[in-house]
Amino acid sequence: MNRGTLYIISAPSGTGKSTILSEILRADPNIHFSVSATTRAPREGETDGVDYCFLSKERFKELIDTGGMLEYAEFCGNFYGTPRQPVYDKLNAGKDVILEIETVGAKKVMSACPEAVSIFILPPSLKTLKDRLVSRNTDPIEVIERRVAEAEREINLAQNYDYVVVNDDLDAAVSEVKSVMKAAKKMTKLNHDLIKGVLEKC
Amino acid sequence: MNRGTLYIISAPSGTGKSTILSEILRADPNIHFSVSATTRAPREGETDGVDYCFLSKERFKELIDTGGMLEYAEFCGNFYGTPRQPVYDKLNAGKDVILEIETVGAKKVMSACPEAVSIFILPPSLKTLKDRLVSRNTDPIEVIERRVAEAEREINLAQNYDYVVVNDDLDAAVSEVKSVMKAAKKMTKLNHDLIKGVLEKC
Repeated sequence: MNRGTLYIISAPSGTGKSTILSEILRADPNIHFSVSATTRAPREGETDGVDYCFLSKERFKELIDTGGMLEYAEFCGNFYGTPRQPVYDKLNAGKDVILEIETVGAKKVMSACPEAVSIFILPPSLKTLKDRLVSRNTDPIEVIERRVAEAEREINLAQNYDYVVVNDDLDAAVSEVKSVMKAAKKMTKLNHDLIKGVLEKC
Repeated sequence: MNRGTLYIISAPSGTGKSTILSEILRADPNIHFSVSATTRAPREGETDGVDYCFLSKERFKELIDTGGMLEYAEFCGNFYGTPRQPVYDKLNAGKDVILEIETVGAKKVMSACPEAVSIFILPPSLKTLKDRLVSRNTDPIEVIERRVAEAEREINLAQNYDYVVVNDDLDAAVSEVKSVMKAAKKMTKLNHDLIKGVLEKC
């Protein structure tokens, strides 16, 4: 059986990433969405294994110490990260896995798994992103300004990704991410074993 | 207007490259096929500008000296190469350009044009390649053995390419090369200006 493909998907907040991802997952039940682990307490309505895998600090640190985290970060006294084992189990079972992850964690996973395919979803412009956040009418302007500044910092790191897709029109963006995910399976970095196989002596 | 995309396509002899390319060119008249230049004399039935651009040695050397060749090689006393100007004219006019080129020339073009998208077409195995060449029944076994050895040398360089596609079933291979060509337009290396544009201040 062929090993599955690991996809790293990043996008600034307000880029429509969650909508794009839910469309992609809905269309292909063979793709597994990796659930992050955290040591923070579950909030009202959150389900263990769906929103997050809720772990004790001891268990999380044990995973860090034994190389069990593909990446992790500490934020406001809590740990957040991607447990390695569930990802590799799915890949080895031939399933594709999507990690939805911010740019710092993404960089760590790219180093740990050079065969991962990374896709950065861009807003059409910072101005559009700001307009979208303003029109949601849920956040004060200071929060929006901070989010746009954060988006700018993240977009500057888009250069590290294999692919960039602009979400201007949602249907177009979903279709482009799907095409990229499919074609990326032909990337040479995913096919070293295939090339070796072709070269086997007659 | 968006600049066109430059595609480098290589494949060992006997891999069905010409058939795949003619299918791709037939399906999309917006793709331009770059015609190589040579200083050798035209053979019976060859048309200037179609099979090759036939150039005098003086003109070819002048192009080399003025940086007018993307790559070139000398073979049996004649020069063969890819004139830069026609390729760039088409790209600047928004057309995609395919260079069908062997591995040494391909490497030179990859260095000169890092934004080129390179695709290597593989046979399913060296054994299949040999069987195909034998079943054509046009070459003595010594020639076939030499071709298979040459294919082996070239396939060892497939690692340098962005993508590899196996031609096992022709229709599948054509469809895969088309998908790769389309999705490759989202590669980050082709979209530095797009990212810069997104970052422009609100």
